[in-house]
Amino acid sequence: MERIDQAARWLLERDNFLILTHRRPDGDATGCAIALCLGLRSLGKTARIWANPQFTPRYAPRLAGLTTDAPAEDDVIVAVDLASESLLPMGGESFAGKTQLCLDHHPSNTGYAVETLVQPECGGCGELIWDLLEAMGVDITPAMAEALYIAVSTDTGCFRFSNTTSRTFRTAAKAVEHGAAIAPINRVLFEVKTRGRLELEARVMANMEFYAGGKVAIGCLPQAWVEELQVTEDDLDSISGFPRTIDGVQVGVMIRDSEPGKAKLSLRTAQGYNASAYCARLGGGGHAAAAGAAVPGTLEDGKNAILQVLRDAHVI
Amino acid sequence: MERIDQAARWLLERDNFLILTHRRPDGDATGCAIALCLGLRSLGKTARIWANPQFTPRYAPRLAGLTTDAPAEDDVIVAVDLASESLLPMGGESFAGKTQLCLDHHPSNTGYAVETLVQPECGGCGELIWDLLEAMGVDITPAMAEALYIAVSTDTGCFRFSNTTSRTFRTAAKAVEHGAAIAPINRVLFEVKTRGRLELEARVMANMEFYAGGKVAIGCLPQAWVEELQVTEDDLDSISGFPRTIDGVQVGVMIRDSEPGKAKLSLRTAQGYNASAYCARLGGGGHAAAAGAAVPGTLEDGKNAILQVLRDAHVI
Repeated sequence: MERIDQAARWLLERDNFLILTHRRPDGDATGCAIALCLGLRSLGKTARIWANPQFTPRYAPRLAGLTTDAPAEDDVIVAVDLASESLLPMGGESFAGKTQLCLDHHPSNTGYAVETLVQPECGGCGELIWDLLEAMGVDITPAMAEALYIAVSTDTGCFRFSNTTSRTFRTAAKAVEHGAAIAPINRVLFEVKTRGRLELEARVMANMEFYAGGKVAIGCLPQAWVEELQVTEDDLDSISGFPRTIDGVQVGVMIRDSEPGKAKLSLRTAQGYNASAYCARLGGGGHAAAAGAAVPGTLEDGKNAILQVLRDAHVI
Repeated sequence: MERIDQAARWLLERDNFLILTHRRPDGDATGCAIALCLGLRSLGKTARIWANPQFTPRYAPRLAGLTTDAPAEDDVIVAVDLASESLLPMGGESFAGKTQLCLDHHPSNTGYAVETLVQPECGGCGELIWDLLEAMGVDITPAMAEALYIAVSTDTGCFRFSNTTSRTFRTAAKAVEHGAAIAPINRVLFEVKTRGRLELEARVMANMEFYAGGKVAIGCLPQAWVEELQVTEDDLDSISGFPRTIDGVQVGVMIRDSEPGKAKLSLRTAQGYNASAYCARLGGGGHAAAAGAAVPGTLEDGKNAILQVLRDAHVI
């Protein structure tokens, strides 16, 4: 499928939808699912979201009444923001081969569904869903607008990331015009951190090591601190990027020992540095600006391993 | 003046402009001045920005070639984002009574200029300037678009604050469409903090005191730390809001001893709490959500004073 209007017609011609999200669903996947479900229902159709066990508690009130863990045999399965069947949600592996329509914005989409509409130019998949709801003639309510505001704002780091486009901003503008109350959403999603998270960041910062005159920063996050401060994985969202938020840091490294006997490294790099290449030397991979690897041993072993790679690459 | 087109006509009929910004100019004032100056020049007019001594180094490259510290006698003085003559820039006090046009978005604008256009519905004054440039027929360049993106994004805390409107998002969308490269701007303005600032935050957090089950947080920022870590006032931007960014905190208090013998308190509160009323008890004032006060003595004296006020108000 090439165009929004084709997907709109496809949906209008069918009924009894089951909406799938991906493993570890983020704000974009969750917001898209909510808005699409509400939009289809507003047209008199039956639509439910598959109860992904990893939906975060934060979105529970918005999901109330929309989810099911008992899909019907003849459900029309629509996946949102789900690039590959390897990302099917936990417990939803049996949906493999059954997706009839996939609505996505990942260029890496594997084309696993019968019909696929991918718009990689979208900052958030919510931009596509907004235009789809409009194309279906849905009267967009504040609840739909807020769900899609959550989708596009979370996927672009509150409009900060490089995937933010004019369409992202225009979707946000329309969300506000359709009654989305964005200030409380912004506070929860982008301003507030838990006390545990902030105490953890304080400890990581106090122990941050700098090299090459501050161009390289290496932070360690011992699992013992995570447990002591009772910090959840939800609280730790995007902690990997923390060292790179320090002024002057071109190569930011965060190391965790969340799995025993293993040091997991996350790299974030500026232009001119290749995180993927450094991680490949340790058996990992990723993108030029963000990559990861795991080495056997302790946090200290992980630090020594990446220091050697950076020395070999003449970064330090 | 009531409308953008009136201001546009007024400017088109004149020449030789001197643009004024306010004391401690922020991204909105600076961005508006740059875009207006460039826009007027693109129409063949002479325009210069008065060289506010407090322009921050961050914006120096964008101001290069636009400023003057030697205004001419017959300059037409246009103020942007300048609500009152009490906010005239340092060294620019002699401009009092001389502003011919004021373009602003503060509802508190005192009407000190001969002509005034105030649009309080703007998140950033940059929204007004964008529409004004369009109304004057300016062909908006990437440099103008970036200046106005800086204006609206900084004044809304990167679209997080409650003053963000659909017009704010639409201005940002147009800025991108006119060639503004927003990703590097966002990184500098909203993602990166200096090492000193982060080390300071880590110390403040490690010493943060919580009351009323975490509803109240009080942080102290000793000047000795500021000096030891060589942190500038620029680095400390919006540090006052830090305690209120902790999950669950309804009343956030930051106390500084930047002036000897005095404890300066900044309060940030959630709905249902009145920062202004608490500060009034200590001789200060402000808004319901953000207020300040100063008490004689040490940081400890400041803390005891606000604790007493919060006890009296049954907050703790």
